[in-house]
Amino acid sequence: MDSMIRMAIIGGDARYLELIKKLSEKENYYMELVGFDQLDQGFTGVKQTNFDELEVEDLDVIILPIPGIDEDGYIETVFSNKKIQITKNWFNKLKKGCLIFSGITTPYLSSNAEKVNARLLPLMQRDDVAIYNSIPTTEGAIMLAIQHTNFTIHSSRVLVLGLGRVGHSVASKFAGLGADVVVGTKKDKDIARAIEMGLEAFHMEELTAYTGQCDILINTIPAKVVTEGALNQMKSNALIIDLASKPGGVDFNHAKQRGITALQALGLPGMVAPKTAGEILAKTINQLIITQ
Amino acid sequence: MDSMIRMAIIGGDARYLELIKKLSEKENYYMELVGFDQLDQGFTGVKQTNFDELEVEDLDVIILPIPGIDEDGYIETVFSNKKIQITKNWFNKLKKGCLIFSGITTPYLSSNAEKVNARLLPLMQRDDVAIYNSIPTTEGAIMLAIQHTNFTIHSSRVLVLGLGRVGHSVASKFAGLGADVVVGTKKDKDIARAIEMGLEAFHMEELTAYTGQCDILINTIPAKVVTEGALNQMKSNALIIDLASKPGGVDFNHAKQRGITALQALGLPGMVAPKTAGEILAKTINQLIITQ
Amino acid sequence: MDSMIRMAIIGGDARYLELIKKLSEKENYYMELVGFDQLDQGFTGVKQTNFDELEVEDLDVIILPIPGIDEDGYIETVFSNKKIQITKNWFNKLKKGCLIFSGITTPYLSSNAEKVNARLLPLMQRDDVAIYNSIPTTEGAIMLAIQHTNFTIHSSRVLVLGLGRVGHSVASKFAGLGADVVVGTKKDKDIARAIEMGLEAFHMEELTAYTGQCDILINTIPAKVVTEGALNQMKSNALIIDLASKPGGVDFNHAKQRGITALQALGLPGMVAPKTAGEILAKTINQLIITQ
Amino acid sequence: MDSMIRMAIIGGDARYLELIKKLSEKENYYMELVGFDQLDQGFTGVKQTNFDELEVEDLDVIILPIPGIDEDGYIETVFSNKKIQITKNWFNKLKKGCLIFSGITTPYLSSNAEKVNARLLPLMQRDDVAIYNSIPTTEGAIMLAIQHTNFTIHSSRVLVLGLGRVGHSVASKFAGLGADVVVGTKKDKDIARAIEMGLEAFHMEELTAYTGQCDILINTIPAKVVTEGALNQMKSNALIIDLASKPGGVDFNHAKQRGITALQALGLPGMVAPKTAGEILAKTINQLIITQ
Ligand SMILES: NC(=O)c1ccc[n+]([C@@H]2O[C@H](COP(=O)([O-])OP(=O)(O)OC[C@H]3O[C@@H](n4cnc5c(N)ncnc54)[C@H](OP(=O)(O)O)[C@@H]3O)[C@@H](O)[C@H]2O)c1
Ligand SMILES: NC(=O)c1ccc[n+]([C@@H]2O[C@H](COP(=O)([O-])OP(=O)(O)OC[C@H]3O[C@@H](n4cnc5c(N)ncnc54)[C@H](OP(=O)(O)O)[C@@H]3O)[C@@H](O)[C@H]2O)c1
Ligand SMILES: NC(=O)c1ccc[n+]([C@@H]2O[C@H](COP(=O)([O-])OP(=O)(O)OC[C@H]3O[C@@H](n4cnc5c(N)ncnc54)[C@H](OP(=O)(O)O)[C@@H]3O)[C@@H](O)[C@H]2O)c1
Ligand SMILES: NC(=O)c1ccc[n+]([C@@H]2O[C@H](COP(=O)([O-])OP(=O)(O)OC[C@H]3O[C@@H](n4cnc5c(N)ncnc54)[C@H](OP(=O)(O)O)[C@@H]3O)[C@@H](O)[C@H]2O)c1
Repeated sequence: MDSMIRMAIIGGDARYLELIKKLSEKENYYMELVGFDQLDQGFTGVKQTNFDELEVEDLDVIILPIPGIDEDGYIETVFSNKKIQITKNWFNKLKKGCLIFSGITTPYLSSNAEKVNARLLPLMQRDDVAIYNSIPTTEGAIMLAIQHTNFTIHSSRVLVLGLGRVGHSVASKFAGLGADVVVGTKKDKDIARAIEMGLEAFHMEELTAYTGQCDILINTIPAKVVTEGALNQMKSNALIIDLASKPGGVDFNHAKQRGITALQALGLPGMVAPKTAGEILAKTINQLIITQ
Repeated sequence: MDSMIRMAIIGGDARYLELIKKLSEKENYYMELVGFDQLDQGFTGVKQTNFDELEVEDLDVIILPIPGIDEDGYIETVFSNKKIQITKNWFNKLKKGCLIFSGITTPYLSSNAEKVNARLLPLMQRDDVAIYNSIPTTEGAIMLAIQHTNFTIHSSRVLVLGLGRVGHSVASKFAGLGADVVVGTKKDKDIARAIEMGLEAFHMEELTAYTGQCDILINTIPAKVVTEGALNQMKSNALIIDLASKPGGVDFNHAKQRGITALQALGLPGMVAPKTAGEILAKTINQLIITQ
Repeated sequence: MDSMIRMAIIGGDARYLELIKKLSEKENYYMELVGFDQLDQGFTGVKQTNFDELEVEDLDVIILPIPGIDEDGYIETVFSNKKIQITKNWFNKLKKGCLIFSGITTPYLSSNAEKVNARLLPLMQRDDVAIYNSIPTTEGAIMLAIQHTNFTIHSSRVLVLGLGRVGHSVASKFAGLGADVVVGTKKDKDIARAIEMGLEAFHMEELTAYTGQCDILINTIPAKVVTEGALNQMKSNALIIDLASKPGGVDFNHAKQRGITALQALGLPGMVAPKTAGEILAKTINQLIITQ
Repeated sequence: MDSMIRMAIIGGDARYLELIKKLSEKENYYMELVGFDQLDQGFTGVKQTNFDELEVEDLDVIILPIPGIDEDGYIETVFSNKKIQITKNWFNKLKKGCLIFSGITTPYLSSNAEKVNARLLPLMQRDDVAIYNSIPTTEGAIMLAIQHTNFTIHSSRVLVLGLGRVGHSVASKFAGLGADVVVGTKKDKDIARAIEMGLEAFHMEELTAYTGQCDILINTIPAKVVTEGALNQMKSNALIIDLASKPGGVDFNHAKQRGITALQALGLPGMVAPKTAGEILAKTINQLIITQ
């Protein structure tokens, strides 16, 4: 795409402030904000618009909030208390081939975007975005580990479950702080990579043989892997941080029963580093606008 | 020293719980606790004693609180609300050559110990203890950096002032998290070491040329080095963490005036990792008892 | 598999000495060696056998040399000067379901194994083996970089092309030595991972913009990526190490013309660490025997 | 010093080529080379002079070879076959306060420099130069470890003796390659630093308890520490690299008797990275000229 690109950002959270700032630096973007009326801060060259006044048919790019659109068409507007509903009718007005960005998609969003031939780009499903976001996620986990233990990460034994996009970052950064990191995973190749990285590693079937010795357990696997059996071996003063999306991978009830602190820590990038999280979105959106 | 060693721990804070626990594992120590009467927790084989009932003349080892004794003879007793005063007279009763441990010493403590030929061992003045403590100190600084910024440590530019015992650990661990670390120091050899460690480095005289670009400044130099001039160059959303002991190394007034968040962060080991801090004390005390 | 496992190792190179040693430690393996008659060294409990005397129909496991079998049925026998030919007829005698290990496969080997329902396991094609082997490969590249330059790896700018199994290890270890590593890759997710690892990264299309500044270029991409154009920008005292399998990824003629040293460095694991390479094979074979 | 600085480089080895190149880039230096007559290469703005024709009384800076001057006044001239003798008489002609650089000093050099009030600066005795040189020294040790073993540095157990300027670099870089590094040292503070760095550590008195398990032993202590007793525990296929200056710290005879490969590896910076070693000298000389 070249020449002037018309863009609307409709709703969004703290991360969107940096996103708006970064996008507003591009000379060939004409940006309108919807759902940011309670914002004190202004952005040079950016216009606040009412949802109803948006000239939908002219938009090249639409940026929706991270959670997309719910089943009734509503979206999250952290910086406004006006409700915004995006109807099927609204979608019908869209220019063919316009780009719609969101974090994740929902059935409502996917089906409507498809019907009108808009190109939907759920950013959080992309590998690169997931890896960039794994950085603030890891720092969030580090902060929690320091806050919720009375010992140092250095020299403590940290079990990291999963060596995917988040697990790889968590494992390497805890090791960088001097922890004795042990990775639990289901694939032979992940065992090999963990060992190459200087870590210990085991197959998830053997989990119960490893929980007994650990001081901190960090789960990144989106499946119920930290079961009653695994918890029974743990020291009661160990800390569990579950990073996997809801419902998470830990039997929280059983952990509580055993007196083990188990934190379900979601949405860390937006919490610990909204500016960085916004930059990640801006970088990716800019790049996708160029290459699409 | 061999055979049975008689020991009294008189006052102390949260770190002393782990210290007591670790020392109580030694079979040849006979331990009495003074100033821990509000403690719920018991320790096997350890006796709680009133200050007055202590048989001072039999003691081989006395462990005082980290801050030592104040000028009036009083000591810190976090786990008791009885005031304890250690008088000159009390010192006179001590066995010649008995060991007295504290964190730091005070004129009152030093002069009295010397008079009665006790061997005073202020642990925090030791290089090894300072290096071990630099680990929880660094983790405290990491926690603060994550909490008080809206960006990640990763990819941010971090100025570390001083490459002493604390600075070395801070610099290497922030680099381990992916920060772009720049060390300011006054010695050529520290510049060389920083470069060997893969960091950037500069002489402290050039400080003002470096503050303008940094996102986080961490000071470990116990001297007023972060002056008005250095602060004037800084971005207003940069974060300053001053780790140096009181009065610290930062012109806090001027930082405030410029709207820069500047945290004076003292006593981090006891705050973020009292258990580890207690283990460090126990390890060192045990070793010194053997070698003295 | 349990009870006694009958196994023949037919041919092989220096790596196979450690492989034999490690496998011979297993109590339930009955091992015979073919093609090792010039070996001085003996292995407890291992029998040297002539190819003709092998009771083929009883074998549960056959281990062939890394390069498999050539199109005429011949195999590599570094420790023998007898030629060994493995005929179709020989395959016909095999027990159904027996395991055949090799490094890579060849059309001759694959088709014959399939015909007789043997389970062929070409070890080098496995991700885990490739990752384990990336470790000695990386150390080989480090050795060459030290030998063939008059500057240190530390502080030099190292371009690593590809962030696959070998590239990931090469990039992280050169960075660990203090090099300024820049990764060239074609996938957005690999750019993201490189940045998470604290490295610089670029898309391969931009290669020519990066070659001019580098001191060492290490290629892991098995495609002609280091073209005339890329070479024209390079300093003449830069070093190129091409790790990609034949024909490699570098225009060697043009490099020579420009006076740039370009090394085609193949088979590094067997060269720099045959013992480790043998252990990797043994570990994987043992594990596959258990799980098949 | 400002304005034009008259400088003579009298003798030197491969490192001096880069030194000359770097110094010749300074506009305010007038440089003459003595003892480089066999050099093909020319340097812009640098003059080759015969020793006898040098106008000694005008020189502000004299750069001698790394080993200084021997007891008869002779110096090392790698790029000339003319013998150069620097007599007492020659010293007498020197300008008061002129700077004399060398690597190390000798009694002859020190006493003569002192007599004529020249400021002698033996570069290798400086902490910063020793630390910078520890980088190529470490890379030399890495190269040797890869060449002289049949296993990888990764996962091998490496004993590093001494945590001084060289030991610190060796330990951290071998750890960066994935070795399991254990540091032997005599000071408590070095034990603490090694542990902070994520390494294991022990007191040198316990050396014999550690040699039995190691795969590679690297000595940096300039004292006979690797004695018969320490060697008796070692595996015969372990590798010893002695970096300490002559006579080194290893009982080489006993190592030989036990069949252990023990390399006395001296002068590594000049061997593996003469360009970097020359740059280190140039950087330091430039800085000292400015600050003296
Ligand atoms: N808390 C936060 O702030 C935050 C931030 C980012 C992401 N997340 C969440 O963190 C989780 C991980 O994200 P990611 O990007 O790392 O995902 P990913 O790259 O897909 O990694 C998930 C890992 O879990 C493994 N796995 C999946 N199911 C498994 C099972 N049943 N048993 C064993 N292993 C299994 C996968 O192994 P295979 O690859 O072999 O299948 C993979 O290694 C997700 O739930 C994500 O939503 C949370
Ligand atoms: N916040 C906490 O929880 C916490 C925990 C531990 C320690 N601390 C404090 O942190 C500070 C540093 O402790 P440390 O153990 O690292 O001390 P250290 O080893 O003595 O290091 C101090 C560093 O500051 C440098 N320095 C001193 N005066 C200077 C000056 N005027 N200009 C430039 N540089 C100067 C020293 O350089 P030279 O070596 O060249 O003199 C040295 O590099 C102390 O105040 C200590 O009490 C705080
Ligand atoms: N010298 C030795 O001793 C030694 C030892 C081991 C391996 N090797 C050789 O080293 C090479 C790499 O092995 P590996 O295990 O790392 O393989 P790999 O995991 O498949 O990695 C290859 C990398 O090259 C990229 N790539 C492939 N074709 C490309 C193209 N046309 N343009 C840009 N990028 C391309 C791949 O990207 P995608 O993933 O995006 O396709 C991948 O990142 C192989 O040739 C292997 O045989 C040599
Ligand atoms: N092979 C090469 O190419 C090369 C290159 C550079 C240097 N070197 C040589 O390497 C050696 C080390 O250099 P460096 O710069 O690291 O010196 P350094 O900083 O002085 O370190 C020497 C270390 O040895 C320890 N030490 C000295 N005597 C000891 C003893 N009797 N017992 C136990 N420990 C002892 C010192 O401990 P304390 O600090 O506690 O005394 C210190 O940790 C020197 O001989 C140097 O000439 C060789």
